[in-house]
Amino acid sequence: MRPVELSERVIRALVGRHEELARISEPGPGVTRLFATSEHLQAIELLRDWMQTAGMTTRVDAAGNLVGRWAADPAAGGNAKAILIGSHHDTVRQGGRYDGAMGVLLAIACVEALAAAGRRLDFHVDVVCFSDEEGTRYGTSLIGSRAIAGVLEEAVLDWKDAGGVRMRDAMSRAGFAPERLATCAYRPAETLGYVEAHIEQGPVLEQENLPVGLVTGIAVGSRYRFTVEGVPGHAGTVPMAQRRDALTAAAAMVLACEHVARERAEVVATVGRLEVSPGATNVIPGAVTFTLDLRAPDEPRQSAALEAMVIAVERVARERMVAVRHEAYYRADGCEMDTAMRAALARAIEAEGLPVRELFSGAGHDALALRHIAPVGMLFVRCRDGISHHPDEHAEPADMVTAARVLLRFLADFAPPTRA
Amino acid sequence: MRPVELSERVIRALVGRHEELARISEPGPGVTRLFATSEHLQAIELLRDWMQTAGMTTRVDAAGNLVGRWAADPAAGGNAKAILIGSHHDTVRQGGRYDGAMGVLLAIACVEALAAAGRRLDFHVDVVCFSDEEGTRYGTSLIGSRAIAGVLEEAVLDWKDAGGVRMRDAMSRAGFAPERLATCAYRPAETLGYVEAHIEQGPVLEQENLPVGLVTGIAVGSRYRFTVEGVPGHAGTVPMAQRRDALTAAAAMVLACEHVARERAEVVATVGRLEVSPGATNVIPGAVTFTLDLRAPDEPRQSAALEAMVIAVERVARERMVAVRHEAYYRADGCEMDTAMRAALARAIEAEGLPVRELFSGAGHDALALRHIAPVGMLFVRCRDGISHHPDEHAEPADMVTAARVLLRFLADFAPPTRA
Repeated sequence: MRPVELSERVIRALVGRHEELARISEPGPGVTRLFATSEHLQAIELLRDWMQTAGMTTRVDAAGNLVGRWAADPAAGGNAKAILIGSHHDTVRQGGRYDGAMGVLLAIACVEALAAAGRRLDFHVDVVCFSDEEGTRYGTSLIGSRAIAGVLEEAVLDWKDAGGVRMRDAMSRAGFAPERLATCAYRPAETLGYVEAHIEQGPVLEQENLPVGLVTGIAVGSRYRFTVEGVPGHAGTVPMAQRRDALTAAAAMVLACEHVARERAEVVATVGRLEVSPGATNVIPGAVTFTLDLRAPDEPRQSAALEAMVIAVERVARERMVAVRHEAYYRADGCEMDTAMRAALARAIEAEGLPVRELFSGAGHDALALRHIAPVGMLFVRCRDGISHHPDEHAEPADMVTAARVLLRFLADFAPPTRA
Repeated sequence: MRPVELSERVIRALVGRHEELARISEPGPGVTRLFATSEHLQAIELLRDWMQTAGMTTRVDAAGNLVGRWAADPAAGGNAKAILIGSHHDTVRQGGRYDGAMGVLLAIACVEALAAAGRRLDFHVDVVCFSDEEGTRYGTSLIGSRAIAGVLEEAVLDWKDAGGVRMRDAMSRAGFAPERLATCAYRPAETLGYVEAHIEQGPVLEQENLPVGLVTGIAVGSRYRFTVEGVPGHAGTVPMAQRRDALTAAAAMVLACEHVARERAEVVATVGRLEVSPGATNVIPGAVTFTLDLRAPDEPRQSAALEAMVIAVERVARERMVAVRHEAYYRADGCEMDTAMRAALARAIEAEGLPVRELFSGAGHDALALRHIAPVGMLFVRCRDGISHHPDEHAEPADMVTAARVLLRFLADFAPPTRA
C-alpha cells in the first residue's frame, strides 16, 4: 500500500502544539498538569479542538479521558473495531512537555495525515488522551487507562488528595461522572489493540544514535525496605576493629546490590532513600534503613536478582556482625508487549530504513492497564540525556517526525484479524 | 612509705554513693543533671556534705565548681601548693551514673582514706567537682574546668540554652557569680597537677581483662562535611552502566574512609550523618552529604589520615564520575598527658601488681582545660561493653576500688618539686 505522507503543515503543527499544550500548567518551572483540575479541562478543550479540526468525533468519558475517533471506512461494515492510540496529558509536578503529551500529539498527527490523504481504514482509530497516568494528585497511577480497561476499583474514588479533596468530588466538579465509571470501559471484542509512543526516559537510544526503539515489555518492579541494626557508640572511644557500625555495613550492602544489578542484563537497582539513626556526627550509627527499587524484564529475572542481593547483603551482615532484615512493600506488575504488535511495529520501523533496537521499559505506562483488554505495543522516542520528569526533558522534532511516520505505517498496514 | 589502706567503710561508701548521687536527676531514664539547675545545686549539697564529713574545707566558686580541700601538712609551710583531683558532676541527657561522677567520688574516697590514716601530705589535695564538662545545656563544654583554668571567655556567659535562658542569668539564679568569673582561676604557681579517673567509654580494657589503663593523651578531633554531586535520574530507565549515582559513590567513600582508619593505629573515623537528595524511592540520588568525625592521638597522625581519606574519596569520585568536595567545620584540640604525671601514675599501677596498659582517649575531658595551668594525668577505668552516655553505663565496684588504690598511691607517693 502506498505510504501516507506527513505534510509540512502536519509536522509544523505537531512540533508547535507541544509548546502550546505546555503553556497549560500550574505556575512554576516546567509543566504541572494534574487530574481533574482546571488545567486538565483546558487541555481537553485544546486537544478536542485539534481532534475535531482533523475530522474526528470526540467525547470525554466518565473518568475524564478524551477520545477522538477517526471512523473506519464505511465499507468495513457497521461492526468495525477500534485501534486505540495515544498516551496521557498529565504530568508529575514540574515535569516536562513530552512525557505523555507527545504520544497524544503524534496520534493526532497520524489522523491528520490520514485525513489529508483521504484515507479511512478498516477499523476505527481512537486517539486516547488518558486523564491520569502519573498518579501525581492521588498517589495512584493509571486512573484513566484503568477506567478504559474496566479495571479501576470503585474504592479509589474515595481517596483524597493532599488538600483532602475526595477523587469523586474532584471528578464531579470537573464535570466527569464518577458514578458512571463503568461506562468508560472498552469491550475486548471491539478493541484490536493499543499502541503508544513515549519518550524513552533513558539514554540508550541517544547513545546508539537512533531516533526510535521498539519496546519489548515493561519491567516488573518491586520495592523493599532494608533495616540494618548494629551497635551505636561513642565516635571517639570505640576502636575501629570493635565497631558494629550500621552505616558502614549499609554502605557495603548498597554496593553489593549495585554489583549484582551490574552483572545482570536489563536489571536495574536503586537505593533512593537511606536514613541513619541516631544521625549525630559524633555517634557511631546504630541503625540504618534503606529502600531498594528493583526492576527486571520479567518475574524470574527479578526474583533471581533479589535472591542474589539478599545473599550478598546477608554476607555483609555476618562479616560485620550486624543484623539485617528486609520486607517488600510495593509491587508493580510488568508486562510483555504483544508479539503481533511488536512484529507490526518492527516492520514499520524497518520500512523507515531504521534498525529495530529492542528495549524494555523500566518505567510503567498506560499499556499496563490496556493489556487487560487488548494486545499492546509501544514505541520509544529518543530524548536528550535520558532526562524525564524534569523541565529539561526534551525530544527533537526530527525524532518526533520519525515516530509519526512509523506509527502511520503501522496504522496503514495494520491488518485486523479476519472477522468471525 | 607505707601504703594507705582503703577500709571497708570507705569502699562501701564509694560504691553506694554512685546510686545516691544518680537519684539526683531530671525525670526519665538514666541520669540527667545539667549545669546551673536545681539538680546541680542538690548534687553540690550532697557532695559537700560528704567532703566536709571527710574533713575537707569546701567552697563553691563563681562558676559553680565545688572544691573540697584536704589541707597540706602544716609542716609543709604556709606556701603549700595543691594537687587537683576530680571530675565533673554533669551528664548528657539520659546518661549514666559513672561518667564524671565516679572521678569525683573516687577523689573523695582517697581523702577519706588519708583522713582515716591521719595522713596529711606536703601539698593540698583539692577535690574538684566541675560544674559542667559535657556542655549539654549550653552547647559549649568544659565550662567549669575552663573557669578554673582561667580560659573561659566572658562572651560565653551570654549564650542561651534551648529555653532562651542566658548562661549568666542561670548562674545568678543558682547563686553562682558570673560577674566574678575570674576569681575561679587557680594560678599555675600554686598548682602542682591535675589528675582524674574516668570510665574508658570504650571496650579495650574489658577485652584485655584489665581494671584500669593509663591515658597517654586526648585525641585531636576534627569534623568534616563531604558533599557528593552526581546526576539524578529515573530509577527504572537509566541503565546501571550509565548512572552517576551520588549514593553508591558516597557508600564507596564511606568504606574508603573506614579502610584508611582501620589501617592506622589509634585513628578512629565515623560517618554519623548521611543525607540523600532527593531521597525518593524511585529516583537515583543526585546528591549526598555526609559528615566525617576523625580523631587521632596527635596532629600529624590526624592530618595524615585525613589526607589519605581525601585521596581515596577523590579516587572514588573520578571512577564514578561524580563531584566531591569537603570542608572542615569543627576542631577540638587534643593534648598529651604530662610525662611526669604519666610516670607517677604508671608506678602506682605497677605497685598494685597490674600491667600498665596505655590508651589514648578519643573523647574530650576536663584535662583539656586544666593543662593550661598544670601538668595533667588521667586513669581510665574499665566499663561494661564500652557503653557510655547511656543509662546502661556500668563500672564494677571492684574496678573502682582498684582505681581508688592507684590514685591513693599516686597521691601518697607524689613528690612535689622542691620549692624554689
